[in-house]
Amino acid sequence: MFSPPAMLKLFALSFLLLGSITGHPVKEFNSCQLSEGLLYEIRSYGPIVHKIINEIVHGRFAGQTWQSLAELTDTFGPRMSGSQELEDAIDYVVKAMVDDGLDNVHTEDAPVPQWVRGYERAQLVEPNRLELPILGLGTSVGTPLGGITADVVVVESFEELNELPNEDVEGKIVVYVPQWVNYGVTGEYRRLGASAAARKGAVASLIRSVTQFSIGSPHTGVQSYEEDVEKIPTASITVEHAEMLLRKYRRGEKLRIHLEMQDENLGIFTSRNTIGELEGLVHKDSSVVVVSGHLDSWDVGVGAMDDAGGVMISWKALTYLNAMGLRPRRTLRAVLFTGEEQGIWGGTQYYEDHKEHGEEEFNFFFESDSGTFDPRGFGFSGNEEARCIFEEIVKLMSPLGAMEVTSSSSAGPDLSGWSNAGYPGAGLLNANERYFWFHHSAGDSMLVEDPVALDRCAALWAATAYVIADLSVDIPKN
Amino acid sequence: MFSPPAMLKLFALSFLLLGSITGHPVKEFNSCQLSEGLLYEIRSYGPIVHKIINEIVHGRFAGQTWQSLAELTDTFGPRMSGSQELEDAIDYVVKAMVDDGLDNVHTEDAPVPQWVRGYERAQLVEPNRLELPILGLGTSVGTPLGGITADVVVVESFEELNELPNEDVEGKIVVYVPQWVNYGVTGEYRRLGASAAARKGAVASLIRSVTQFSIGSPHTGVQSYEEDVEKIPTASITVEHAEMLLRKYRRGEKLRIHLEMQDENLGIFTSRNTIGELEGLVHKDSSVVVVSGHLDSWDVGVGAMDDAGGVMISWKALTYLNAMGLRPRRTLRAVLFTGEEQGIWGGTQYYEDHKEHGEEEFNFFFESDSGTFDPRGFGFSGNEEARCIFEEIVKLMSPLGAMEVTSSSSAGPDLSGWSNAGYPGAGLLNANERYFWFHHSAGDSMLVEDPVALDRCAALWAATAYVIADLSVDIPKN
Repeated sequence: MFSPPAMLKLFALSFLLLGSITGHPVKEFNSCQLSEGLLYEIRSYGPIVHKIINEIVHGRFAGQTWQSLAELTDTFGPRMSGSQELEDAIDYVVKAMVDDGLDNVHTEDAPVPQWVRGYERAQLVEPNRLELPILGLGTSVGTPLGGITADVVVVESFEELNELPNEDVEGKIVVYVPQWVNYGVTGEYRRLGASAAARKGAVASLIRSVTQFSIGSPHTGVQSYEEDVEKIPTASITVEHAEMLLRKYRRGEKLRIHLEMQDENLGIFTSRNTIGELEGLVHKDSSVVVVSGHLDSWDVGVGAMDDAGGVMISWKALTYLNAMGLRPRRTLRAVLFTGEEQGIWGGTQYYEDHKEHGEEEFNFFFESDSGTFDPRGFGFSGNEEARCIFEEIVKLMSPLGAMEVTSSSSAGPDLSGWSNAGYPGAGLLNANERYFWFHHSAGDSMLVEDPVALDRCAALWAATAYVIADLSVDIPKN
Repeated sequence: MFSPPAMLKLFALSFLLLGSITGHPVKEFNSCQLSEGLLYEIRSYGPIVHKIINEIVHGRFAGQTWQSLAELTDTFGPRMSGSQELEDAIDYVVKAMVDDGLDNVHTEDAPVPQWVRGYERAQLVEPNRLELPILGLGTSVGTPLGGITADVVVVESFEELNELPNEDVEGKIVVYVPQWVNYGVTGEYRRLGASAAARKGAVASLIRSVTQFSIGSPHTGVQSYEEDVEKIPTASITVEHAEMLLRKYRRGEKLRIHLEMQDENLGIFTSRNTIGELEGLVHKDSSVVVVSGHLDSWDVGVGAMDDAGGVMISWKALTYLNAMGLRPRRTLRAVLFTGEEQGIWGGTQYYEDHKEHGEEEFNFFFESDSGTFDPRGFGFSGNEEARCIFEEIVKLMSPLGAMEVTSSSSAGPDLSGWSNAGYPGAGLLNANERYFWFHHSAGDSMLVEDPVALDRCAALWAATAYVIADLSVDIPKN
């Protein structure tokens, strides 16, 4: 899951309202009145939903999603925007989708920025020497060769920084040690910290990694320079070291840090969104139901959680339905976006390329980009009528346990354009309380992915998408 | 907490029976029959125990133990055997003990090995390139300069390795990927893996870090070469990478790893055990009650958990009793051992130096070396009569909640010599279920230490030691 540069803040803010991630309250829906006929029709999907769930969770597909996910992440490792590994992974998925018998397998070009992590090192040099593992933040400029050494100012908030006279900050490295509130709030220090520090004359900034819990891993993520300030290097340090620096600073110790980063922005690279379909029996190029995730990841860990898991349940939902001979009336389309982590580049391009005929082309959008832990339901985005139909469909998923539907302002980060334009959609809710423990760190690995939970996510995804794609009515848009 | 080289296995095996660490079953005690007089005397300590607990948990000392621990670990960082940081920390503690008003503050020399981590790197070079963060295991030899590159054999157990023909292992790097059972069982791959691999002709060995849970951190620890095999370099890799290598190997992929380690054994260095006392009102040099931990740590993280927390509650128990004007009949002695992590060197030297007159000198031993999370009681080592008295004393600790007493074969790793010789003692039981998440890794930091839990540990430690030191009777030895 990405965190947005300023230019895309509106998109992302809407995503940040997803209840399961931020803990924000969600509005309650009113009661629904669907026609008896539609209710009857939806309920008639009970047996087929049972069959889909059963085959994926207990039948011939059980465990396969995890194995496919392991093979993808083990083979290509991390998949950064602009890297050969990402492009190789895209080629691999294209071939595998064809092997799975999917229709219209193809890619669509999308520009992505190529930011490359170089040699990175931070060392506390006063009052004692200590290596501080760091991860430069995406889009950060590097330091001059040989690095910079500067005194340190430690602050716990933007307010604290802004209350300091500029001369107390000029020429220094600002270390932000905000306490964890949630990803939206605490993540602002990652997204905007460098610019705020530069505005006060700082030469670099470091942030406490954006996580509630740590075992000594820094967590990276994208940041964005504001237009009118100097671009200064910026990186994350571990929670352990951030808290330690804060304590030392509060004790009155004079801190100096040597920072060297050879990170570089190499410009724009053409990557690809990866698309495969289960072509509809009745509607081929219209009223498409999209299931999606993003194939790119950060360069630490292998992005099994963020977001190869979301990619895999989206792709394999089609594969399993196909293998079961279940082809709905509408086309089911898996879209595996590129360049999400660097600022929703693939998702934005897809919206730009398809929005003109979007009214006809699309019926419903799913995205999974907040983990594939045990599924809990959906965060729904759309109007009341759409929500009423969707809730009734989700009731069919009871073989997976009680699945909830909460309100969300977007189906997911790559789909924000569609959600903002009034298209209905849903994001996966799952037991992701530990999501940020691993997020954008070396811990984002297959250890996080449980085979049974992943089967249950795939089953929920496949069955819900199937019903929507096969229903006699479209899901209402605004 | 250390894990032993072969020469000290007996000591360590006894420690490994500590129920809270290994989950081994512990024997149940029979019922006790203490004299009415002794029962009455023990119960008479109720008010004083309440006062000690109240002052440390709610009164003027509340939060101080955590602050002192933070200052120690923030100032000196990791404290490896043979390092200047450890010796500086010893000097600091000596001065601080004097400032705290403790008696007979001094150090006693102990030899420790100096093993130094140099440049370390492992890289998967086939079938894909991937950096594998490693931590060399203590006492490991380095590789030749420039490193070695070799094919890989992955095994899940010693049995699997030993069933392979030697020619399948010769010239290769053995990667051990045992599943977590407990520290005693799984830790054997760290302690003995290099020798077992060398015996089959391997040129190096790597182990899955010994932990149940990971966020991408390798966990180090000491290992031991058997005498009749070649010394090959050996290191830990992350759980994430170990499991990944195992999957790739099981898929039939040919794996090659480049390994470079410039680690070195520099020989024996003279370090010091650090000692401070609260001199007894009646007995000065006899019937001493020892409270202890070890001041040395590994070189990753800062060893706040392993074992500066144990050191701090032992030292500060005396400080707080002194500040409260509570001086027991017997001497309370804090012993902060050195060189534990590299093989119980300080503890062994202390036993050798004091055992001749041990019968007269010592009454009871405490050690805290399995965490200072919320306290749960004690693992007791000693005869039935001793245990009966100890259990009755522990009942006084009810203001801290129900404290349990389980059976243990040793009061702690540094005290194994005393426990084996029949001296009574007790180790701290605490809510350390996550202990191995952080153990010997970058995660062993102040984040793990909770101020309230630490106060409660210090209170339990101080109050229990005080009663034993003040009682009219000695605790029976074998």
